[in-house]
Amino acid sequence: MSQQLDAKLEKLSPEELELWKMRHTAEHVLHQAVKELYPQIQLAMGPATEDGFYFDFDNSPEGAEAVKISEEDFPKIEKRMQHIIKRNMPLIRQEITAGEAIKLFADNPYKLEWVEIAAQRSEKITIYWTGKPEEKGSMVDLCAGPHADSTHAIKAFELLSVAGAYWHGDEKNKMLTRIYGTAFFSQPELDEYLRLKEEAKLRDHRRLGKEMELFFIDEVVGKGLVMWLPKGTIVRDQIEKLAREKEEAGGYVRVVTPHIAKEELYLQSGHLPYYKDSMYPPMVMDDGIYYMKAMNCPHHHRIFQHKPHSYREMPIRIAEYGSCYRNELSGTLAGLLRVRCLAMNDAHIYCTKDQIKDEFKAVLKMTMEYFEIFGLGNFWFRLSKWDPAHTEKYISQPENWDYSQQVLREVLEEMKVPFVEAEDEAAFYGPKVDVQFKSVIGREETMSTIQLDFLARERFGLEYVDEKGAQNKDVFVIHRAPLSVHERFLAFLLEHYAGKFPTWLAPVQVKVLPISEKFADYSQKVLAELKKAGIRVELDDRSERLQAKIRDAQLGKVPYMLIVGQQEEADKTVTIRHRDKQEQQVVLLPDFVTNIAQEINERK
Amino acid sequence: MSQQLDAKLEKLSPEELELWKMRHTAEHVLHQAVKELYPQIQLAMGPATEDGFYFDFDNSPEGAEAVKISEEDFPKIEKRMQHIIKRNMPLIRQEITAGEAIKLFADNPYKLEWVEIAAQRSEKITIYWTGKPEEKGSMVDLCAGPHADSTHAIKAFELLSVAGAYWHGDEKNKMLTRIYGTAFFSQPELDEYLRLKEEAKLRDHRRLGKEMELFFIDEVVGKGLVMWLPKGTIVRDQIEKLAREKEEAGGYVRVVTPHIAKEELYLQSGHLPYYKDSMYPPMVMDDGIYYMKAMNCPHHHRIFQHKPHSYREMPIRIAEYGSCYRNELSGTLAGLLRVRCLAMNDAHIYCTKDQIKDEFKAVLKMTMEYFEIFGLGNFWFRLSKWDPAHTEKYISQPENWDYSQQVLREVLEEMKVPFVEAEDEAAFYGPKVDVQFKSVIGREETMSTIQLDFLARERFGLEYVDEKGAQNKDVFVIHRAPLSVHERFLAFLLEHYAGKFPTWLAPVQVKVLPISEKFADYSQKVLAELKKAGIRVELDDRSERLQAKIRDAQLGKVPYMLIVGQQEEADKTVTIRHRDKQEQQVVLLPDFVTNIAQEINERK
Repeated sequence: MSQQLDAKLEKLSPEELELWKMRHTAEHVLHQAVKELYPQIQLAMGPATEDGFYFDFDNSPEGAEAVKISEEDFPKIEKRMQHIIKRNMPLIRQEITAGEAIKLFADNPYKLEWVEIAAQRSEKITIYWTGKPEEKGSMVDLCAGPHADSTHAIKAFELLSVAGAYWHGDEKNKMLTRIYGTAFFSQPELDEYLRLKEEAKLRDHRRLGKEMELFFIDEVVGKGLVMWLPKGTIVRDQIEKLAREKEEAGGYVRVVTPHIAKEELYLQSGHLPYYKDSMYPPMVMDDGIYYMKAMNCPHHHRIFQHKPHSYREMPIRIAEYGSCYRNELSGTLAGLLRVRCLAMNDAHIYCTKDQIKDEFKAVLKMTMEYFEIFGLGNFWFRLSKWDPAHTEKYISQPENWDYSQQVLREVLEEMKVPFVEAEDEAAFYGPKVDVQFKSVIGREETMSTIQLDFLARERFGLEYVDEKGAQNKDVFVIHRAPLSVHERFLAFLLEHYAGKFPTWLAPVQVKVLPISEKFADYSQKVLAELKKAGIRVELDDRSERLQAKIRDAQLGKVPYMLIVGQQEEADKTVTIRHRDKQEQQVVLLPDFVTNIAQEINERK
Repeated sequence: MSQQLDAKLEKLSPEELELWKMRHTAEHVLHQAVKELYPQIQLAMGPATEDGFYFDFDNSPEGAEAVKISEEDFPKIEKRMQHIIKRNMPLIRQEITAGEAIKLFADNPYKLEWVEIAAQRSEKITIYWTGKPEEKGSMVDLCAGPHADSTHAIKAFELLSVAGAYWHGDEKNKMLTRIYGTAFFSQPELDEYLRLKEEAKLRDHRRLGKEMELFFIDEVVGKGLVMWLPKGTIVRDQIEKLAREKEEAGGYVRVVTPHIAKEELYLQSGHLPYYKDSMYPPMVMDDGIYYMKAMNCPHHHRIFQHKPHSYREMPIRIAEYGSCYRNELSGTLAGLLRVRCLAMNDAHIYCTKDQIKDEFKAVLKMTMEYFEIFGLGNFWFRLSKWDPAHTEKYISQPENWDYSQQVLREVLEEMKVPFVEAEDEAAFYGPKVDVQFKSVIGREETMSTIQLDFLARERFGLEYVDEKGAQNKDVFVIHRAPLSVHERFLAFLLEHYAGKFPTWLAPVQVKVLPISEKFADYSQKVLAELKKAGIRVELDDRSERLQAKIRDAQLGKVPYMLIVGQQEEADKTVTIRHRDKQEQQVVLLPDFVTNIAQEINERK
């Protein structure tokens, strides 16, 4: 445990380490406060975490009366914590022997268990005092540290939630009470954290996906396998349509390849045996062993090489809205962010050395066109290069490394986009450009990667007939999927838009809301006109009050509500209510159709 | 062997049996003629087949000089066969003992092997004489029969091909020479058969698929798994687009479901254990056993039932261009006609009993709309019903059987389509309507099936909230995939059109053929104009002669060739050459664009 912790702390920057130590101290302040308030409670354990801290309490130790702690008790606990912080108590480290530890924690079986483990491993046993040892009001805990010097370091903190947690995470053990909290060096930082946390909750893709009826995960069908409901399928189809349009304009051709392949293919690609653990288990058929598709590239390479190509055909850009499979552990699967079947607007570009620059530039341009459409501004690029000092980690083609890295750098510079360079971060088989994002809730992530590949031609015998009529094996491959994995991208979009998709992407673009049943005919006419124009429209003709219909349409994040009643019928108009606007607007029906059709067409 | 043969012959109509006997006799005439011409050859064996006969000869028996027989020898052999037929030799059956047979065929190890097998099985041993026994010119063979009375029965015959074949089909045995032939009761029948055979060769989907670069099967990826090349993907996408349009207009919603599912799903559906042998092998994951999708229906049922439905939502029509997997034996896989992964424009309609009629009718209508688009006229329907006398074979819902069969009959009658009824041919879970076709090469086949299902609701707990607010379990399911399995449908279309897809479906709709390099600029302009209009166009700017370019475009079955030269450039015209027309036509470029766009739009 201790070694793992050391390794983790080593990776932190000095600022991050200070924050971690302060939060660790806040955790001690928490359990001290709780122990002071509920002396019969037994302290189990708790760490600092990436964004705060928690502590596990045994609130029903043997022989004592059970205590129930809920979020209602937080003000009381926080007040007591404030008190401890204000007392400016020092944190003091001591090394003690196992014998001393057993004596010190004689009445706490949780601590004794750790002492025993440490003794068996012959690890140092350390304790931390909050306050001077043995002084009144001081508190001691078995702890590897490190800590801030004093409780005064804690400038702003908040308790967040309470939950049940099994001791050692094992359901055979006793259920303990875990209290989560966080702490920062300033109140504004804490406020911003709490705001983003609230924002993240509102934008949670699982909640939105359910409310908007986009998808569900069915335990009977299997974990990590997304069932796209009709509305989610519309969004998926719209994104695929966009990708098709962009790729067609960019000179890509499309293929469809099977979701499975023989072992031989993955031996050729090298996925077997190196990647085997991530692949689905083998299926033994009468003519060999088959696997679920690990990647789309090997299939595309086989398509490229299935017939001879002339230099006149190069570059060849092969695209597919393909699916890949990863054998993730079921316990790690989460919503759309970690799945076992991934859809991708994948493509592979086969080009000559001279064509790398133009192709890479075109891919970057296409990527940025997507960003503009989706309103994503907060991005930058990272050029991941090899390290000539670590040649054993990289394919030995120094000339190609130098040439292509320079070319990629030129592309990034010419396009005047923000980018950083990272040495020794390339893949084995070539340099890459990662697209980095900061999401609306402040999370940094890699959206997609553009990868150059010097190796595929060797493994798959890729070649073309060049200007001199010779078989030329100098074929470079660019792997690209600018919209990331579809599942992950949709989670990202849900969060980005808080579910409020732009009209072109919204599963339901318009909802017609008749004020009463008297306007059924006119509602049907409005519905028919919109359908004729290819608008995705629904009619809410339930005998509910208008306010209820509006509320439900808002919940479904429908961009336009069209209210129709007597006046509208008489004037052949509709009253437009936009999901994000308070004021309503009355327009002629044909004008509305023209305007929304244009908005959809331009993907505004 | 003999029992198998008896069972096969029992299924034939009297006419079919007569034909079979005559062909069997023709086979004897063939081997008699060959033996007369090449006495050193040893006769192995041969049967009548579904469309003719064949015989296997050992043309290099031990101790004899090897003889080579090729198709060049057919006239000579056919002449000798004519001679035998004209002699009007009777076919005479005799039963003999094993001892007698061993003596009779002492010099033929192939016959002796069969005698031994028959003796071990204590089967009767029969021989057939052609001509009176022991008379000069007569011939005897070990044979179970039956035969025509005389060689005179053979009115028209032809030898078709020669090929190598292992004894017993086992490559460890000796390679024999197999001669194929066929025979009919009249010359016109034979002529028609040969014409269709020639037609089938020209329309062979594997040859066309390769020539037109639509697809290929890659042994490294796996047998029975189609790799759709860019041009094949265009055709696939166009058919999917058509299906989407029709289904959207028909009120279907679309979903996307995973290609795999847990064992639990297929236990619920009943595919396991009954259908297990046809399914891909299980994949054992950390949370259970997974299978490749056997059918789309279980996934769709789960989507239907994942939330409560009101009667106001019914019927619910769930569509998907889904993929299913069948573990066919690798040796049985053939081109697109027998594959392991099948794509389908599948859909399931969930309706109440009252809605069956309208829904069935709508499905039939949509099916016939497809037929019209694809120019398919030669079809009829077959209503497959249960047999109340065999209730053990059918789900026990007599009222539903009677009601729904009557409803389906009414639909077929009201639509005035040709149909037959077939008793005791329904599925276990409901009646169905098969769509029967006669292809351009005379083959009858079932294109698709519309299946009613009384069972799914029980297995999947399907229900809705009815007008009275009660949970109503009376949900009927219609399974339908009017365009069959995509792979099979494409093979059918390739044959149907002989590769000459109508313009809307053609992978390349227009090919621009400049007369020389001097017209490169204008060619590019023509290309750009067509691309702008969304036409799939290619430019053949190789420095080949025009005739060569036309020949290649014809080979690619491109509907329109646009020839451009000096005159066209000056007049802003193109010279249209249609793949099926001799005469050429000069039109203004914008007019051509308008006309072809309309042709594509209307799917003419």
